[in-house]
Amino acid sequence: MELKRPIRHAKITNDMTVSELAEAFSGCAFGAGRLFEAVEIYREMINDCECTKFFGLAGAMVPAGMRQIVSDMIRDRQIDILVSTGANLVHDIIESMGLHHYKGTDTADDVQLKHDAVNRIYDVYLPEHHFTDFEEKMQPIFKEIPDKLSITQLLSHIGAKLDDDNSILKCAYDMGVPVYCPAIQDSIIGLQAWLYKQTKPLNVDVFDDMRGLIDRCYEAKRAGVVIVGGGVPKNFILQSMLVTPKSFDYAIQLTMDRPETGGLSGATLDEARSWGKIGENARAVTVYSDATITLPIIVAAAKSRE
Amino acid sequence: MELKRPIRHAKITNDMTVSELAEAFSGCAFGAGRLFEAVEIYREMINDCECTKFFGLAGAMVPAGMRQIVSDMIRDRQIDILVSTGANLVHDIIESMGLHHYKGTDTADDVQLKHDAVNRIYDVYLPEHHFTDFEEKMQPIFKEIPDKLSITQLLSHIGAKLDDDNSILKCAYDMGVPVYCPAIQDSIIGLQAWLYKQTKPLNVDVFDDMRGLIDRCYEAKRAGVVIVGGGVPKNFILQSMLVTPKSFDYAIQLTMDRPETGGLSGATLDEARSWGKIGENARAVTVYSDATITLPIIVAAAKSRE
Amino acid sequence: MELKRPIRHAKITNDMTVSELAEAFSGCAFGAGRLFEAVEIYREMINDCECTKFFGLAGAMVPAGMRQIVSDMIRDRQIDILVSTGANLVHDIIESMGLHHYKGTDTADDVQLKHDAVNRIYDVYLPEHHFTDFEEKMQPIFKEIPDKLSITQLLSHIGAKLDDDNSILKCAYDMGVPVYCPAIQDSIIGLQAWLYKQTKPLNVDVFDDMRGLIDRCYEAKRAGVVIVGGGVPKNFILQSMLVTPKSFDYAIQLTMDRPETGGLSGATLDEARSWGKIGENARAVTVYSDATITLPIIVAAAKSRE
Amino acid sequence: MELKRPIRHAKITNDMTVSELAEAFSGCAFGAGRLFEAVEIYREMINDCECTKFFGLAGAMVPAGMRQIVSDMIRDRQIDILVSTGANLVHDIIESMGLHHYKGTDTADDVQLKHDAVNRIYDVYLPEHHFTDFEEKMQPIFKEIPDKLSITQLLSHIGAKLDDDNSILKCAYDMGVPVYCPAIQDSIIGLQAWLYKQTKPLNVDVFDDMRGLIDRCYEAKRAGVVIVGGGVPKNFILQSMLVTPKSFDYAIQLTMDRPETGGLSGATLDEARSWGKIGENARAVTVYSDATITLPIIVAAAKSRE
Repeated sequence: MELKRPIRHAKITNDMTVSELAEAFSGCAFGAGRLFEAVEIYREMINDCECTKFFGLAGAMVPAGMRQIVSDMIRDRQIDILVSTGANLVHDIIESMGLHHYKGTDTADDVQLKHDAVNRIYDVYLPEHHFTDFEEKMQPIFKEIPDKLSITQLLSHIGAKLDDDNSILKCAYDMGVPVYCPAIQDSIIGLQAWLYKQTKPLNVDVFDDMRGLIDRCYEAKRAGVVIVGGGVPKNFILQSMLVTPKSFDYAIQLTMDRPETGGLSGATLDEARSWGKIGENARAVTVYSDATITLPIIVAAAKSRE
Repeated sequence: MELKRPIRHAKITNDMTVSELAEAFSGCAFGAGRLFEAVEIYREMINDCECTKFFGLAGAMVPAGMRQIVSDMIRDRQIDILVSTGANLVHDIIESMGLHHYKGTDTADDVQLKHDAVNRIYDVYLPEHHFTDFEEKMQPIFKEIPDKLSITQLLSHIGAKLDDDNSILKCAYDMGVPVYCPAIQDSIIGLQAWLYKQTKPLNVDVFDDMRGLIDRCYEAKRAGVVIVGGGVPKNFILQSMLVTPKSFDYAIQLTMDRPETGGLSGATLDEARSWGKIGENARAVTVYSDATITLPIIVAAAKSRE
Repeated sequence: MELKRPIRHAKITNDMTVSELAEAFSGCAFGAGRLFEAVEIYREMINDCECTKFFGLAGAMVPAGMRQIVSDMIRDRQIDILVSTGANLVHDIIESMGLHHYKGTDTADDVQLKHDAVNRIYDVYLPEHHFTDFEEKMQPIFKEIPDKLSITQLLSHIGAKLDDDNSILKCAYDMGVPVYCPAIQDSIIGLQAWLYKQTKPLNVDVFDDMRGLIDRCYEAKRAGVVIVGGGVPKNFILQSMLVTPKSFDYAIQLTMDRPETGGLSGATLDEARSWGKIGENARAVTVYSDATITLPIIVAAAKSRE
Repeated sequence: MELKRPIRHAKITNDMTVSELAEAFSGCAFGAGRLFEAVEIYREMINDCECTKFFGLAGAMVPAGMRQIVSDMIRDRQIDILVSTGANLVHDIIESMGLHHYKGTDTADDVQLKHDAVNRIYDVYLPEHHFTDFEEKMQPIFKEIPDKLSITQLLSHIGAKLDDDNSILKCAYDMGVPVYCPAIQDSIIGLQAWLYKQTKPLNVDVFDDMRGLIDRCYEAKRAGVVIVGGGVPKNFILQSMLVTPKSFDYAIQLTMDRPETGGLSGATLDEARSWGKIGENARAVTVYSDATITLPIIVAAAKSRE
């Protein structure tokens, strides 16, 4: 066995940029080494003009303060196709209405919070009455849209109605980036649709979006994916490639989930190679660390002149 | 502060039953203590005739060998409403066709597996050609069903066509237990629907199922939930209660996920109290341990004469 | 690739014994499959008369209620050599004095607990004044022992003075099982020694115990190890084998720690093969699940007539 | 309930410094919010001239490439007292001899590595023959030191003999920073001592170091602690404060470990308040993320002029 790459210890310098820090990790191992590799893959991917860039967004990233980073990624053309959980889109709409999430604590008395009409998401608080405002925003939108449309079209209609350039849905609408959300009924948007359907017709087909997404996979010269947190977005992106003769060429996974439970969220990217979802020779790395820390670092490191 | 409950150390005896082991954990703390509490809550819940029992099934529980336990729970009337990921249902259908999953290893060479046409799910192997058989099974089923139906109705039709009493979908069909699967397009069932829709009409509405599920929440005198692995099933069950004046009275969560990432899968059940999804005085416990170990223990401990 | 071992789904039966449950896991994967393998290895190991059995005890297993299981393992000759953290021994001594740990909650107000003079260990409470009683117990013991001795000898002296057959230290003393505790100063025993040494001589050599432990490794015809929780006990056991031409033949690791942080506690047992600590052909398995659940199951399954 | 601190979404800018990134996290939650808080506490702590600064180093931080960061922290007077695992010191000595660790992969064939005489630490490789060189370095050092000394004195002697300004032990020696290592026998240094003691006298007392460390706790006007990875270093630092009337005023914990196992490594810092180890009003935060990423960020953010 040839040992060729000695560990080079990271050195911290004055007023170091995020890009320089990532560079300092180039000779490191464990999480630091993986993060450097993710930065390298990300730079290569966004500079590859023939690469279609997918982004899977799970976890409560918007409540945590990661909304602007995602919408900027869309404006900067670093995301061509977004697949999200419903919750992130709900919280994006709430913020676009000028309503806020608040810093709280994860050691709160939840019964007291209930009495105070405050909903908790780990250490984020959300006033319950925001959902009343949300209803007032959403019901008129449902009234204006066609009776029959796909989930992506529904989300595009909503995005068009938001008056906030920092909104993920608005940015996606502006930039022509389709937003997929397979389990949209599993969100407050879904509850609004249920409410609306009690009196008005609305038909959103479950499977209509698949064709468009799979076509994008077929058409891609090369394809890359950034997966935040796993869940439905991860699988929906990867399985769309499964039915094509192609596979992902670049893949970055940011998660705290672990492989040993056998669930998809924590599954290694190598496992996806056995299915042919990720290519045999694709560059792929998982960074096992909090995505609210690693996603900003990767985006920042790629936003440097170096 | 009054300290009233001394730790009593577990004692192992000869030919101990699972129920006795759970009882031996009654004076313990950490995971053992939480497991005892889960057993207690589970017994109380299944013996409460006026309690509607929800079950959320995420993670690759069927590939891991937990299929019969779930189908027996349905036959034993321990599950009134099932919410599942698409993947568990796909793997249930595959097994019902007499096809197998196989024990493999999590340290496999995934590129070699790809060459051998074997798909990996942690330490489980699945021959790729099973999906060809799956297609041959599913396409005729799609041909026989109505053009327009809900996800639950689609799954009920599939269940009716399976010739295997150990199948989850078949048992659910037999017992009249509705199966919800919000992100069904995010599964090989979804890919089959996409294939079918290339030539034939099929319209499955995203939101149609919500009414039935929410109505069950409204109607429940009392409600209990067992959550395996989090994900969409967890949220879909809990949010359905959100729009009613009620809340869950019993809740058991079996997961390895952790709260600190802020994602829903790892969120504590207390967090759900702040939303009013779980009642202020509800009995609720999370067991942070592998669900392929804890679910069988809970079911076995409840299946004793004691 | 030959696929030979189909997944067989676990079936729960009435009044099932723990041994039967383990057997039901024989065809399962993920944690259930690993637990079955651990049971198999454990049975083989304890039935191998020529095997020297090491046990590494980290994590707060005694406060959690696992004390009797460990002391019974010693009495049943399932442990030949015990390596423990200091904390587990401190809590063992406290219980042997008739003092209790108490069930509490992990969501306590810790500042209030401080005011109430209650120390918290996750969901276990310990009255602060127990440490006053502990001092009254320990200081006279220090007075009676030689000025100069090894850590193992010190622990043996303490064990001899305990009047409780369920005590780990007492059982170890009775059965002639040496107890190693490399970081003994990192415990309340250490603080008592510091107190004693302010006025009296006491010399306990850091390295004296190594010879005895390494000699046992040299002499072992075969060797097996059960590792609970990792930490110093894990490494101290494995490194003692490192300097011999031998290696462990059986190894079971019960932990929730994960490999990706690079720390030893979560390191795979395969990693230990690269060092030669565990043999190339040794039977070894890690069960990633709460050890307060898995250790009792393994011991109970082995305590059946089957 | 008053909700006062709205979530402000992080914005990434061109050539952002690490300090600016940390500032961008000031309005975020989850890991990003915790990391910002850690940066704030760290800045306050290192600027507090009357604060004695403790550092607990567990996990394989040196093999991962974090050695220079720790030695620079010592030179920059950001560490007054270091408590380490033995392993980190062993790997520090190896690097100081001009020998390297190497980048490898965590999916290696460990039996092959064994045949190639390469030891693995997650994704780091270490040639086995380095330990032969290590022996040649260490045995002469043992010959020159007094027969009787404390662990700290032993490590100071070793540090004095290292010819590498980037070495942690050398820096500590140069700067008069004591290095504590309670479980030193649990390391290759320990194995070298065992070897040496086969022919020569050496007496290193287990408890001798406690007095010095506890005295530093007594004397500290204020005290702060940075805990990397938990383990013995975490507990040894915290328990030393326990016997004084004081408590830590600042505390930062960087770990991936979790509270639910009940072990000390993952225990919350709040738990330490119930013991009085950390003060009721102390500023304390745990960042649940890979320490090879978060430690460099905290140090870099503090090294800016802002």
